[in-house]
Order: sequence, then C-alpha cells, then structure tokens
Amino acid sequence: MIDKLEYTNKHELIFLDQSLLPLKEKYLKTKNYKDIVEAIKALRIRGAPLIGIAAAYGVVMGVHHYNTENRKNFQIHFYKVIESFRNSRPTARNLFYALERMTKVFEENLEAEFNDLEDLLLREADAIFDEDVEMCNRIGVNGADLLGEKSTVLTHCNAGELATGGIGTALGIIYTAKKQGKDVLVYADETRPLLQGARLTTYELGANGIEHDLIIDSMAANLMKEQQIDCVIIGADRIASNGDVVNKVGSYSLAVNCAFHKIPFYVAAPGTTIDFDTETGDKIEIEERDADEITQVRGEKITGSNVNVMNPAFDLVPNNLVTAIVTEYKVHYPPYNFGRLKQMFQSYIQTLPSRNDDD
Amino acid sequence: MIDKLEYTNKHELIFLDQSLLPLKEKYLKTKNYKDIVEAIKALRIRGAPLIGIAAAYGVVMGVHHYNTENRKNFQIHFYKVIESFRNSRPTARNLFYALERMTKVFEENLEAEFNDLEDLLLREADAIFDEDVEMCNRIGVNGADLLGEKSTVLTHCNAGELATGGIGTALGIIYTAKKQGKDVLVYADETRPLLQGARLTTYELGANGIEHDLIIDSMAANLMKEQQIDCVIIGADRIASNGDVVNKVGSYSLAVNCAFHKIPFYVAAPGTTIDFDTETGDKIEIEERDADEITQVRGEKITGSNVNVMNPAFDLVPNNLVTAIVTEYKVHYPPYNFGRLKQMFQSYIQTLPSRNDDD
Repeated sequence: MIDKLEYTNKHELIFLDQSLLPLKEKYLKTKNYKDIVEAIKALRIRGAPLIGIAAAYGVVMGVHHYNTENRKNFQIHFYKVIESFRNSRPTARNLFYALERMTKVFEENLEAEFNDLEDLLLREADAIFDEDVEMCNRIGVNGADLLGEKSTVLTHCNAGELATGGIGTALGIIYTAKKQGKDVLVYADETRPLLQGARLTTYELGANGIEHDLIIDSMAANLMKEQQIDCVIIGADRIASNGDVVNKVGSYSLAVNCAFHKIPFYVAAPGTTIDFDTETGDKIEIEERDADEITQVRGEKITGSNVNVMNPAFDLVPNNLVTAIVTEYKVHYPPYNFGRLKQMFQSYIQTLPSRNDDD
Repeated sequence: MIDKLEYTNKHELIFLDQSLLPLKEKYLKTKNYKDIVEAIKALRIRGAPLIGIAAAYGVVMGVHHYNTENRKNFQIHFYKVIESFRNSRPTARNLFYALERMTKVFEENLEAEFNDLEDLLLREADAIFDEDVEMCNRIGVNGADLLGEKSTVLTHCNAGELATGGIGTALGIIYTAKKQGKDVLVYADETRPLLQGARLTTYELGANGIEHDLIIDSMAANLMKEQQIDCVIIGADRIASNGDVVNKVGSYSLAVNCAFHKIPFYVAAPGTTIDFDTETGDKIEIEERDADEITQVRGEKITGSNVNVMNPAFDLVPNNLVTAIVTEYKVHYPPYNFGRLKQMFQSYIQTLPSRNDDD
C-alpha cells in the first residue's frame, strides 16, 4: 500500500505531495495546520476521503501547537482552525463530516484537561482514518460482485488508494476483484484539467499490478461504441440523499454516454460522502477553480493571454443516470433511499465517545 | 485574415508553424518538399483542407527543384513525391483529393515541356487554394442560415481559418453569421491531446472579435444539460458517401451528448472532404498517433514511464447522429445522398484543364 499520510507522535503530519506524482515521490512534513489547509487547496492532498482524514489530523495539530492557558482563547482558536479547513474546498462531503466529528468531540469535552481533550481529538482523527480503511475494504467486497470473471472497467479521475485512507473506492473494487481471481482490465481517463487519471490512477494501478490503458477523456465514448467497456466505476465527492452524485468534471458526460450505450454506470463511495441533509444534487456547491489549471499544464502556458475559461472542478450526475451506488453497507439501486445507512451513520456518530473509550 | 501559407515565385513555401501557436507566431520557409511532408506529419500544417493545399504546392516544389533532363527519372521522382505526401497522414480526404488532381494534370501532360508541365502543376495548386477559399465562403453563407439572431455554438478542435485556405468551415459559418449582424458566443473545446481548441481556435476567434469561452472537452455535456448550447458545429477530415463523419477524436462523444440533449449536431466541410468512393465510415482508416502526445504536454512529461496509451487522432460519428452537413453546395439533411455534389465534383475535375486555360 502506498503511504499517503502519517501523523507522528511529534504531532507532525507527513504526507505525499500528490501534485508532483508520478514524476516525484516527495513527502512533505509539517507541524503547522495552515500548511495542511494549503496542501488541500493545492491538491497536494486530494480525494474526498483523504481530505477528511487530513483535515481531522490538521485540527489535532492546530490544537496541539497552540500555546495558551486561557480556555476562552483556546476555544476561539479551535473554531478558527475548523473554519480554515471548512474554507479549503467546498464540495467534498467527507471534509465537513470529519470537521463535524472533531467539533462534536471538542464540544462534548470542553471541561476536560487540555491534554485529555487533545488526546480525545487525536483518537477521533485516528478513528476517522481507521474507519475509512475499513469502509474501503467493504466497498471493495460489495462492489466486486458487480464484476464478471473477466471485466473491462473504465474509470475517471482517481478514486483509489491515493484518494482514501485505504485501498480506495472505485479502484478498491478493482483490487478486491483481482484478489478474488477476477481478470480486470482498466481504461483510465486522463482527467483534464489536472490529469489525476494520467498521473495518479496509472501510477497506482501499475503499483498494484492491474493491467490498464490510458485514454483522453473524450475517447471513452468510442470504446463504449466498440463494446470495449463492461462498466464505468467512479468515486464521488458528495452524494445527495436522492442519489444525485457530484464527482470530478467529466463524470456527467460519461454517465450520458453510458446511458446511450446501455453500459452500467456505478459510483463507489463511503457513507461519509453522502450528504444526508441535502435532498438533491443541485443544492451542492460546485467549486470553480483557477483558469490557470486549463491555460497552463504543469506551469507551461498553452493558450494566449486573456482567454476566458470556465473551470468547475466537479459536475453533477442526476440519479436517473446512476445504475448503482456501492457503499460499505451494500449495493444501492434506484430509487435511492439511504435511510438505513443514514440511521447507521447517526447512531455511529452518537456512539463515538464510547468507541473512543474502548480504544 | 491570418497568413497561413504562401508559395513564392522562388518556388519556396512560407508557412506558419501552427504547432507553436499561440505562443509563437513563427513562419518557416523551405524549398524542400520533404520539409512539407514533415510539417504535415508534425501538425505544423494541419486542418484537412490546408493539408491538401500544402501538399499540392509541395508537389510543385518537389518537381521544380529536381534537376534532370531524363523524362523517365522525372516520372519516377514525381510519383515518389506523391507517395511521400500520401504517407504523411492517412485520414484527411482533402490530401488525397489534392494529390489526385496533381497526378491527373501530370499524367495528362506527360509530353509537355518541363517548364510548361511545372507551370500547369503550379496553376493546379493555385486553383486548389483559390477554390478552397471560395468553398469556405459558400459554406459560411449556407451554414449561417442555421444560426438564430443570438446563438451559442460549441465547437471542437479547429475548423477555422487556420485549417483551410479561407475563412474556415465550422468557424467560417460563425464569421459569416457575425458579419450578417448575428450575435454568436462560441464555446471552444480545448481538444486533447494536442489542444487545437485551446491554442488555435481561441487565437483565431480572438483575432476575429468573436466572443468565446474555453472549456475542457468533458465539460461540453454539462453546458448542454444547462441549455447553454444551441448547436454544435465541427469540421470533418473525411466524410463517407452515406454521411458518416470522421473528425478529431472527441467528436463522437459530442454527437452522443447532442443526441441525448436534443441539440443539433452540424458538420461543415467542403466537397473535397467527401470520399464519394467510400460507402461507410467504418472503411476509413483512423490514424493512431504517438503515445507521447498524451504522456507529454509541450515536451513536459506528465505520466510515469511504460504507460500503455491509446491515441487515435480521429473518431467516427455515424450518420444517424449528424443533424446536417453543410457544404459549399447546400445544407444536406439525412438520409445523406451527395449524388448531385458527386456529379459536380466529377465534372469539376474533368473541366479543370480548361479552367486552367482560362486562368
């Protein structure tokens, strides 16, 4: 497994700078939570689940390295740290989920000794990490059932090891199927503008011995026409409670092409990605990113100056184009109703303090 | 109008190196036909109609700078030059059309004096150029009728001034509509892998004062969903006689998305792009280009080594997804039957010697 991030007992986060992959495997190390905020903004740490994990540790770090005896200032500082992370990226649900859990632990233990509170926060961050690993494994097992003995899967962006604490969501299904002895060929969309498919997915598929071909995004439709694709599996950044999916820009075009070519379009994501309080996808904020991501490639200018650019990072796939959603709980089919999962998640969060006690 | 290429009276071709646009406006100059073959292969000269024009002049140049008194050797050399151009790129019909015309003039004047033969060949190349300018103008007028007073058009790759001898095909329609006082906003697909949309289309739309936004290819579907696109207009590299269209990779995905969103999908191309002898698109050879075009951007490596890549330059849009084809003759609707145009083209070629006489 690729080492993506590690929180040390010196309250330091060591993380792989994914923006440099695959050309450089460079690890960064920081004791300053602001560096983690920056790393999330700059996609050094990316992938909805991994962002959540990094933010959780970032909160612990922000608390630990703040010296005060004044409880009032300490509280103000805590919410300032939370706010910095809340403002880092708007779309991934997992980020907000992690911050809500950290806030809950903080607020339930306002009277605790500083050291104890810090320890509880660290345990919570560790729990978020551990649970994510476990959720990936379960998604892998649930989703692998969707693949035949010999399957060709097309994926977009990177919803793999590098995007999560564990083996990944979409790619986790592929790794699990492969472990079960299934024969899987993956077509990886390069995923403009930031080329997560070309840079990250090929990198980790190679590391995991999965046969794969890289294509430009607009070629996926041709492969479907030529019956080279058995199914599409992507991850998600946020899922509304009606099953509308927000994921990397380009996902909607793939979903339309799947519908047209009668190919299953699967989404793999943990419950932490589902926004149970948002009924439909059109309520989800879509991050608009800098034009330079399109007008430059790795710092190299490709267009003239003053070109108007639209650069939304994500797009919305309406639930009627989603064949199934694979969570750690089960494979969900339309009409989507995550009621049981929502219950599980609600009780989950409620029982967390006792889970920490058992740690 | 942008100067794309000029054949001088020193039998030299001066041409804009489009592979460097828009960052550098560099003109290259050569007396060696092999440099033109290379320029076509390397996309310094690109766009199906412009390739045909450049190849026609390349043949003149290849003949002029070959010193021999031996007629037999001269003939062998002529066919060698033709063959070099035939092997430069396989898909664009216009290239073969131009080479057929040059060959016809050569074969009909085998007994002529060297100087006279060379002069006839030059006139033929000039005619191919002039006719292309005229065809673009007529396509512009025919196609402009398809646009309302206020239109939003999405285009892919570059089928404009830079791709033709004249004002372009797809973009020629836009320029003509604008001249007629219509209000046109263009969304330009960046067009991976070689970014002709980002580099060339934005460059020439800017030069022509057309309002435009640049998007990544996979975002087109979202704009369609949001009802931001009135129609798609693209060019073509080859059209089969049943109306199947071969154009830049990504065109098929757009056509599927147009069908799904009930948006007209128009193709603009001169009769020189239609392969009257090929009944269906699946018979057309699709050029597979080098993997580096995807694994590198402007010489900068973006993936790891040993990544398997599929890189077809074109794809096939079946006629049932093509709403209309705009030629210099008229707007053709399905079922496509280019019978009258074919007749025109056949008589056209037959009457060419007399047209040259009138020159």
